[in-house]
Amino acid sequence: MSVPVETQLAVERLLARYVASIDEDRLEEWPGYFTEVCCYQIISSENYEQRLPLGVFFADSRGMLRDRVAALRQANVYEPQRYRHLVSSTLITGESGGLVTAQSHYMVVRIMHDGATALFSTGRYLDRVDLRGPEPLFAEKLVIFDSRRIDTLLAIPL
Amino acid sequence: MSVPVETQLAVERLLARYVASIDEDRLEEWPGYFTEVCCYQIISSENYEQRLPLGVFFADSRGMLRDRVAALRQANVYEPQRYRHLVSSTLITGESGGLVTAQSHYMVVRIMHDGATALFSTGRYLDRVDLRGPEPLFAEKLVIFDSRRIDTLLAIPL
Amino acid sequence: MSVPVETQLAVERLLARYVASIDEDRLEEWPGYFTEVCCYQIISSENYEQRLPLGVFFADSRGMLRDRVAALRQANVYEPQRYRHLVSSTLITGESGGLVTAQSHYMVVRIMHDGATALFSTGRYLDRVDLRGPEPLFAEKLVIFDSRRIDTLLAIPL
Repeated sequence: MSVPVETQLAVERLLARYVASIDEDRLEEWPGYFTEVCCYQIISSENYEQRLPLGVFFADSRGMLRDRVAALRQANVYEPQRYRHLVSSTLITGESGGLVTAQSHYMVVRIMHDGATALFSTGRYLDRVDLRGPEPLFAEKLVIFDSRRIDTLLAIPL
Repeated sequence: MSVPVETQLAVERLLARYVASIDEDRLEEWPGYFTEVCCYQIISSENYEQRLPLGVFFADSRGMLRDRVAALRQANVYEPQRYRHLVSSTLITGESGGLVTAQSHYMVVRIMHDGATALFSTGRYLDRVDLRGPEPLFAEKLVIFDSRRIDTLLAIPL
Repeated sequence: MSVPVETQLAVERLLARYVASIDEDRLEEWPGYFTEVCCYQIISSENYEQRLPLGVFFADSRGMLRDRVAALRQANVYEPQRYRHLVSSTLITGESGGLVTAQSHYMVVRIMHDGATALFSTGRYLDRVDLRGPEPLFAEKLVIFDSRRIDTLLAIPL
């Protein structure tokens, strides 16, 4: 499969903006990286591979993502913490009619207020990116995490 | 040194496909990323720098890599585990006659069946990539790991 | 914002060369990635966000960076150790007159002589890259680290 350079970089740039908004606590920008009607799901690799639809989070519209951010801002009970995403190995796997499928590997480190740092989550993104508008947007984003040991109270988007 | 965009992305794409096959347990695809006659070696940075040829794994043909996969599949005695590769900083260091040399930094996280997650290995890839065929292939891949503390029973390719 | 492919890859390539020099202990090359007059600062995210100028390291010329390397080489009292940088999500945020601003996420793993491996630092680079010369150079590099728990005796550049 031959991938146009511009497509590769457009997807990588969307991912870079996405993780920057999260890690710099500009969560209000997060829903804006998705199309109005979208699919965002966080699911374990075990459930994903066994085709069990049970994820730990699901949203199918930008509005639901906005609600999620509002809830996170109100539920300000968590210990302050930071996250640092690293994303690599973005692989375009298909393109059709301006919609691109891509997968990437991610790693998220969590930094607690006292400075304690730990690997929080690793996994991969399965993305469907809509390149037809003025800015690339996620039409679908599946976050498939590797470890079943994940906080059920996911404090932030992945 | 000026590097054509297409060369840079071709090497990055090969690396992305390579790590995706490993992390998604499609090990049977792994030998297919190498030329028939090839060099694949896993070696500690200490031995590499002291020019001691002693690595923890060596193969010089696609057939040997296939044998390795077969052995891994049969020796299914290990605790089930996952790996997650992150690769970054891919730097093309030379090109001659369709063969490109490149180095990259890698990090591998291991996720045990119970969800325990740990840094498994960090290091760099020194690759020689053959761009002359229909798909880019590794003619040579040196995996130079940073830590001498590595499982001698390497369960998976790095 | 539309980013030329060549600009994106030039910045990524500079970052790749930069971290390779550090991780392969070719520290003498490190000052050469900066312009003669430059700004290099390592600062915590807390201080950066509160606009406190207090960083853990600051230099405003290539000469100061050279002095730093000389000091590190003389103060060879540290336990031998290695570092492994991973850099991702490089995002060009502006360009003006051949000067490009970019940010990236980084993660550094430290490997002690006995092989013990640990996450050393995560954070982001805020870079101003001068593309006007024969090679891209950092006119400014801010290393904003996430965790307040960082060795005050930073053994190596970040």
